[in-house]
Amino acid sequence: MRITVAERPVGRLSDAWRLAVGTGRLDLALRRDYQDSLALVQREIGFRYIRGHGLLSDGLGVHRPYEYRDRRQVRHAFGYLDQIVDAYLELGVRPFVELGFMPSGLASGEQTVFWWRGNVTPPRSHTEWADLVRATIGHLVDRYGLDEVRGWPIEVWNEPDLKEFWQDADADAYHRLYEVTAYAVKDVDADLQVGGPALSPGADDGWLPRFAEFVTDRSVPIDFVSRHAYSSGPAQHVPFGVHQTLAPAQRLLEQFASPRRLLAGTALAHLPVHITEFNSSYRPDNPIHDTAFHAAYLAPVLAGGGDLVDSFAYWTFSDVFEEVGIPTTLFHGGFGLLTHRQIRKPTYHLYAFMNRLGTQILARGADHLVTRDDTGRIAVLAWAPVDVNGGEPVDGHAVRLSLPVTDPAARTAFLLRSSVSEESGNAWRAWCELGRPPSPTARQLDVLRQAAEPARRHGSLPVLAGRVELDLHLARHEVTLAEVSPVTDETPPWWDERRLLGGEAS
Amino acid sequence: MRITVAERPVGRLSDAWRLAVGTGRLDLALRRDYQDSLALVQREIGFRYIRGHGLLSDGLGVHRPYEYRDRRQVRHAFGYLDQIVDAYLELGVRPFVELGFMPSGLASGEQTVFWWRGNVTPPRSHTEWADLVRATIGHLVDRYGLDEVRGWPIEVWNEPDLKEFWQDADADAYHRLYEVTAYAVKDVDADLQVGGPALSPGADDGWLPRFAEFVTDRSVPIDFVSRHAYSSGPAQHVPFGVHQTLAPAQRLLEQFASPRRLLAGTALAHLPVHITEFNSSYRPDNPIHDTAFHAAYLAPVLAGGGDLVDSFAYWTFSDVFEEVGIPTTLFHGGFGLLTHRQIRKPTYHLYAFMNRLGTQILARGADHLVTRDDTGRIAVLAWAPVDVNGGEPVDGHAVRLSLPVTDPAARTAFLLRSSVSEESGNAWRAWCELGRPPSPTARQLDVLRQAAEPARRHGSLPVLAGRVELDLHLARHEVTLAEVSPVTDETPPWWDERRLLGGEAS
Amino acid sequence: MRITVAERPVGRLSDAWRLAVGTGRLDLALRRDYQDSLALVQREIGFRYIRGHGLLSDGLGVHRPYEYRDRRQVRHAFGYLDQIVDAYLELGVRPFVELGFMPSGLASGEQTVFWWRGNVTPPRSHTEWADLVRATIGHLVDRYGLDEVRGWPIEVWNEPDLKEFWQDADADAYHRLYEVTAYAVKDVDADLQVGGPALSPGADDGWLPRFAEFVTDRSVPIDFVSRHAYSSGPAQHVPFGVHQTLAPAQRLLEQFASPRRLLAGTALAHLPVHITEFNSSYRPDNPIHDTAFHAAYLAPVLAGGGDLVDSFAYWTFSDVFEEVGIPTTLFHGGFGLLTHRQIRKPTYHLYAFMNRLGTQILARGADHLVTRDDTGRIAVLAWAPVDVNGGEPVDGHAVRLSLPVTDPAARTAFLLRSSVSEESGNAWRAWCELGRPPSPTARQLDVLRQAAEPARRHGSLPVLAGRVELDLHLARHEVTLAEVSPVTDETPPWWDERRLLGGEAS
Amino acid sequence: MRITVAERPVGRLSDAWRLAVGTGRLDLALRRDYQDSLALVQREIGFRYIRGHGLLSDGLGVHRPYEYRDRRQVRHAFGYLDQIVDAYLELGVRPFVELGFMPSGLASGEQTVFWWRGNVTPPRSHTEWADLVRATIGHLVDRYGLDEVRGWPIEVWNEPDLKEFWQDADADAYHRLYEVTAYAVKDVDADLQVGGPALSPGADDGWLPRFAEFVTDRSVPIDFVSRHAYSSGPAQHVPFGVHQTLAPAQRLLEQFASPRRLLAGTALAHLPVHITEFNSSYRPDNPIHDTAFHAAYLAPVLAGGGDLVDSFAYWTFSDVFEEVGIPTTLFHGGFGLLTHRQIRKPTYHLYAFMNRLGTQILARGADHLVTRDDTGRIAVLAWAPVDVNGGEPVDGHAVRLSLPVTDPAARTAFLLRSSVSEESGNAWRAWCELGRPPSPTARQLDVLRQAAEPARRHGSLPVLAGRVELDLHLARHEVTLAEVSPVTDETPPWWDERRLLGGEAS
Repeated sequence: MRITVAERPVGRLSDAWRLAVGTGRLDLALRRDYQDSLALVQREIGFRYIRGHGLLSDGLGVHRPYEYRDRRQVRHAFGYLDQIVDAYLELGVRPFVELGFMPSGLASGEQTVFWWRGNVTPPRSHTEWADLVRATIGHLVDRYGLDEVRGWPIEVWNEPDLKEFWQDADADAYHRLYEVTAYAVKDVDADLQVGGPALSPGADDGWLPRFAEFVTDRSVPIDFVSRHAYSSGPAQHVPFGVHQTLAPAQRLLEQFASPRRLLAGTALAHLPVHITEFNSSYRPDNPIHDTAFHAAYLAPVLAGGGDLVDSFAYWTFSDVFEEVGIPTTLFHGGFGLLTHRQIRKPTYHLYAFMNRLGTQILARGADHLVTRDDTGRIAVLAWAPVDVNGGEPVDGHAVRLSLPVTDPAARTAFLLRSSVSEESGNAWRAWCELGRPPSPTARQLDVLRQAAEPARRHGSLPVLAGRVELDLHLARHEVTLAEVSPVTDETPPWWDERRLLGGEAS
Repeated sequence: MRITVAERPVGRLSDAWRLAVGTGRLDLALRRDYQDSLALVQREIGFRYIRGHGLLSDGLGVHRPYEYRDRRQVRHAFGYLDQIVDAYLELGVRPFVELGFMPSGLASGEQTVFWWRGNVTPPRSHTEWADLVRATIGHLVDRYGLDEVRGWPIEVWNEPDLKEFWQDADADAYHRLYEVTAYAVKDVDADLQVGGPALSPGADDGWLPRFAEFVTDRSVPIDFVSRHAYSSGPAQHVPFGVHQTLAPAQRLLEQFASPRRLLAGTALAHLPVHITEFNSSYRPDNPIHDTAFHAAYLAPVLAGGGDLVDSFAYWTFSDVFEEVGIPTTLFHGGFGLLTHRQIRKPTYHLYAFMNRLGTQILARGADHLVTRDDTGRIAVLAWAPVDVNGGEPVDGHAVRLSLPVTDPAARTAFLLRSSVSEESGNAWRAWCELGRPPSPTARQLDVLRQAAEPARRHGSLPVLAGRVELDLHLARHEVTLAEVSPVTDETPPWWDERRLLGGEAS
Repeated sequence: MRITVAERPVGRLSDAWRLAVGTGRLDLALRRDYQDSLALVQREIGFRYIRGHGLLSDGLGVHRPYEYRDRRQVRHAFGYLDQIVDAYLELGVRPFVELGFMPSGLASGEQTVFWWRGNVTPPRSHTEWADLVRATIGHLVDRYGLDEVRGWPIEVWNEPDLKEFWQDADADAYHRLYEVTAYAVKDVDADLQVGGPALSPGADDGWLPRFAEFVTDRSVPIDFVSRHAYSSGPAQHVPFGVHQTLAPAQRLLEQFASPRRLLAGTALAHLPVHITEFNSSYRPDNPIHDTAFHAAYLAPVLAGGGDLVDSFAYWTFSDVFEEVGIPTTLFHGGFGLLTHRQIRKPTYHLYAFMNRLGTQILARGADHLVTRDDTGRIAVLAWAPVDVNGGEPVDGHAVRLSLPVTDPAARTAFLLRSSVSEESGNAWRAWCELGRPPSPTARQLDVLRQAAEPARRHGSLPVLAGRVELDLHLARHEVTLAEVSPVTDETPPWWDERRLLGGEAS
Repeated sequence: MRITVAERPVGRLSDAWRLAVGTGRLDLALRRDYQDSLALVQREIGFRYIRGHGLLSDGLGVHRPYEYRDRRQVRHAFGYLDQIVDAYLELGVRPFVELGFMPSGLASGEQTVFWWRGNVTPPRSHTEWADLVRATIGHLVDRYGLDEVRGWPIEVWNEPDLKEFWQDADADAYHRLYEVTAYAVKDVDADLQVGGPALSPGADDGWLPRFAEFVTDRSVPIDFVSRHAYSSGPAQHVPFGVHQTLAPAQRLLEQFASPRRLLAGTALAHLPVHITEFNSSYRPDNPIHDTAFHAAYLAPVLAGGGDLVDSFAYWTFSDVFEEVGIPTTLFHGGFGLLTHRQIRKPTYHLYAFMNRLGTQILARGADHLVTRDDTGRIAVLAWAPVDVNGGEPVDGHAVRLSLPVTDPAARTAFLLRSSVSEESGNAWRAWCELGRPPSPTARQLDVLRQAAEPARRHGSLPVLAGRVELDLHLARHEVTLAEVSPVTDETPPWWDERRLLGGEAS
């Protein structure tokens, strides 16, 4: 069945899909591979904000108690943080500040999370914590300017509803931390944006309303609400990896929608909602992240998420990440859009394709999104449906569209089609064929980079009665971008293809 | 029919195909587009020497007569030449020095060649010419060192058998110029390499023997012999372009062979032979240079030319070239492997594929060349036969090979195949589809760069009894590179593809 | 005598000094040395617009007549122009469009100017000229957008009052050209900015009023008025160079002021005035351009010019320039702020120092300009007075200032002083000491780059009663920038310099 | 007193001073600041090898035990190591391999050293340790080639004579470790170079002979001997720093000499000796490292160390280093030649000056080293004597030389002098004057980079009777490089300085 797309836009594509992205702990941002990767991502995708853990953990060296004249004092040191934020701004992305975890010199306990041991206990002094927050935010304001920092969301802690991330998952203790922190932020400047509670998908439906009640009752400042979204089942471990079932992608969209649903009627009902982390699996060692399946699985989430929230941040842009230890093989199921050394995964291309879409939505459906930009270029994102139970057809899927061409003079349109699938733009598949080299040679990395390029086809389509007929046949797990641009023909009158040796009609 | 390739090499692939390349007049080397283009060419192809006209023409400003105290004197100025040679060496390529044309201050007449007006008349003073040569070569030796410059061939003039390039095509006058020049070069250092006569394809068969007789009789120094090769018929003009017939590519190889044939038995019989220019058409405005046909046409020449000569230099690496004026459209039939702004043409990829071949030749044929390198990687160059009369089949061509795998432990081999054809790696075709924009926008240039990428496919081939069966189906005008590498399988024992969602067997 | 500088600004420093800069003919912009030089200039100085000759001359290949079906037609080709403008915008500078000279295919005569032969005769068809202007400006609007191009001044021709630049210096013919051109520009868009007449300093005082009368009488569009300023006497030739007397620098400021003076009371009285070229000598082979004297000579012009005009464009940013032929030595008296290969001349640093000034003027005098920026940093430009008759003292000059410090907490201020003089930041002097190598080696270029660095000194100045006393002793021909910043002292209480080996008090 | 330097060389300057340099733990090499710093160091100094701790520590993730089918197994993972070595080779430096510390999965105890917790206990299984060594060295050979890796020294552990670095400083346990390791290395290839024992300066004089006896008695392979050298007294702590006394620099040279002295007569007497670490203070938080005093203190060590050993490696090239925690201020007394963000310290320039010396030694003394290179350039390194007791004169020091000029035609010589001292090339001093900003702003970093430039002066010296008289007046703590090059005068005969406005004689 062919879908006839009307000329008039039916909606507008927001920036929610690219507003934020996740990253491994902040001190990894000091690395060259990380920065090279982020530079590539920014050039071809262009995220606005970046969020990661560990700003206040020991690895950044901010909180530094010392003794002088027999008195304990604290120096706040921002050398590494400045290197990181300087690099972010230079790369055209801004911090989505997450305040956490606890510096060991301020922690009330020993509990840590991750291989890199982030301390997840409450501060032993809320006064000293407030000093730390004020000093940190105040320093950022001094260095980058108030106008700049007012635009940076500041989120309090991470997933306090989970025992792994907040000692005993103690909600009251989080409420207290949130309150102290929010006031400390506002002490620096009343127009800074503070929010939380960065809930995990596992939080019960009462958590958020109780938090809303707390801040409302006590008039605690709050400028946005945040939570996370993941769709995987329990981890089935193998050495250096896991397998997991996945819920249908729709489950992610339901999680996106939940804060607005749960807060309806509260004082927080109209605050911006940020999904500060999302992905299929919450494990950085699940091979699903590396596959073409994954891109096709997430395509409808990227196409539709902006209807539900102000942002949803893919967790994470790069495999430079060490939460379960240092990866032992190049492809290892990491969260990254890119592997170490910047091999683009299929999901990277899904994002790069999104970056080619126009802002006018002309049509949308279960397997496609049709957009147009101000130059008249139509960009279609289409994807093969996937079945998390393995039931999808292996023999392809078709999307047939009749597209309006706005330029009345155009007699042809130029089609550029870019695709990733099991066969194309799939470095993971090439890596398997190469025998899964744990640390590929320079030559193998070149091959993987070539294999990671989407398949590109181009052609000339006739414009008939102001319309172009576009037939997209999708291979297994294919995500495709079809760009259709009206053509101004500047062929001179003397051109005769038949006179060209090997020409089409020769 | 499948060809069984033996394990033992049958020959060695020389560097003749990459020893030299041509360029537009030397002062164009001051341009950024030129240098960016050369940098790309050097990265992906890697020529050893570069040769172009105009070293002594006014555009480089070397020969500078002036009056001082009522006496005519000459200053030799090397600022531009040094900029150019510095850039060449920095880019890893050395000058193949061509001494010409005549500076206007030394010319005996007004005749010029090309839009940029190179003076092609003899010097009005051979003494002053010899001074100029000595000063120029002496300066190069001072700046770059004798060891370095001894490796640079120095060729005297260009196509003196043509009236366009040498006034009256006066052979005696050329002989005199050659003699004076050769001695001037050897005055600087006896081990510098001087040669000529850079004949055009149109020179009669007596020209070279007469030149040999001249230098032999008078014991004039000569270190190499040079000529040019082109295979096109007369120009049929259209505005800003020409069409021409082409002889079969074999005709180029016959031209390569002719110096050794004509000099057999002379004192010059064993000198190195350099084809200092070759191409299909000798016109920089014949669209054939931009096509996939052209790559397929030249493939057997590149595969076989090294058997006949010490070098054969493609004329030219870039469309930055102004002999018939400044190009008026991006694609305009220029000689270049690259267009302005570095769009790769199909023939560029033919060269880039050559650069991936190994030095051991395992097999060769009318449509293929099979090589291996020291790592055991087999690289096959194959091409669809073309018919200059338009008679080639449009439905493809097949090359079937049985290849030996040297690594006894390998149970599979990795295949990477890269292709250019009418459909793939063909920016010219995309430019036509875009409506032939004379000066494409930034976005169109991006599209053309993407369209210029060869199609890449990869896969895993079984190794059975130490052999891999490779079936190459070639599209119209396709040139393909198939690289086959034995695989060391590092898949861990716990890996089970069936546990991966969307995995092959799920 | 010490000058006490008040805290309150006495004026505002405009951008007139950096609004525009001159360049050699536009096709030189295709060169790498040119673009590398412009990149450096933009990084350290930051001009807004750039203006050069030759946009319509043959070297850019825009106007291309041809025959087709027995009829003369014209193709307009913008490949090179687009490369140039793309590069300018990428480097953060915009074209100050100069329409000229005459393409040979449209010229009514043979007269040319410069070594590169710019044709200076009127068009043989004003219709075809108008087509050319419309096509060119229309193309720029298509490619770069109307909003962008509306900001580019468009100047008609160059120095039509001189026979060298306009056949017979025929004012009526220029009026006609101006009228046709202005209408052609406005045909593209009424808000484009067109102006002229780009008079030479030698134009008699009646020229401009007659031009004003012409455009007023016929209501010809005009958006700005332009002229040039030079202060040198007649050329005394030596081989490859000239010497000239110079008028005092004040003479340049008088020339800047003349359009407003001459147009007072006319309809053009309130138009913007652009000095589209200025320099001391109008010769590109006068060694004065390379000297420290030159920077000191021009310092009061840069400090004061913005009071008189909307812009004054230094002619030119680089020695990549060929009006009297290709330079034969690295230093050759070229106009450039930079030599070939980017050696900074003293006048370059004068501009770089200007770029460090704040926008608040606190004080100014015959030998100094005191500014402050929004951070409280005070930047003083000071210069040794020069005497064009050679009478200046050789033993230095002093400027003594008492500066206000705005930060009440500062107990010290940090002084950074940068200077060029006969001894410092003077690569020309080093080149003389090296024996004037015409084309320096790589090592010599490194030495020259080091010698071109301004001398830098730094220190700590006490703040007493909110003031810092600054004593600047200037060497011969010195131009100096003194930057004074209030210090926030973050020395920890335990620091004791006496405990440091080799420390100040140890 | 003037020293008359003879024309004939008295010795040859070896590469010992640049053969190796130290670095913070290897995983810091993944950082961008580190790699940018190393790139700068390599460009301006050019070390051959680089040595750091932590290759086998957890931060590189090499040794990775896991359970599979109820059995403990070990995966060796080289992803990070490969990134680091790839970067080193790309930057033109090779690894000086140090095998250590103990991966936690192989450690027999919990004792760690440094903030980053390197485990310093013996392996719990020498078999598994040998496997780890073989796997690591074998992997390097596979990836980089045997010829390459045979050139890399491989050192066993670090300072086993100190309890902090080797549990209980147990010499027998070290002997055992050395033996197992040396054999494991030689298992990979007999021509790999293994050595030790990397003793600290505190080791008693018997340690090395006992080690020699052990390896001799048991015929354990050994290819070189190594130790460390430091000259500081005990640490006197302040917050975030220490002060220490220093022995005279001669003490370092005595330490360099000690291995040859102690091993005289043993089987190890003629092995290469490497000082694999040296510095004044062994603390990374002693401000002495940042000062001009430090450069002057070490100058005689660099000038003379090569007479005693095969290499002496400055510990370390960069302040990117975390042994006592993350630095809290930009200047913090780190070991680095460069601070974070690449501010050059005075000692950096001492090394950069060494890199400008020629290989022919013409003269040497307590305060100078006179060299010449093949171009005839004479390079003099001179330094002001320092007194570690604070007794050096504050009013300067003079070195007077009469230098031979080899070019008989030269009538002048060009002098380029570069200096660092308390006043010049001293970013630390500027940082103090700026108020010691812990994390400087972008503008302050620019200022510090400018302040870090050595003072440069140049001039023309007369050559009289084949000699140039060079008078060097040294300021407090000055280290200076004076380069004297014979000049070929290419001034044209018509040049008359008197005709130049502002010229010397005008």
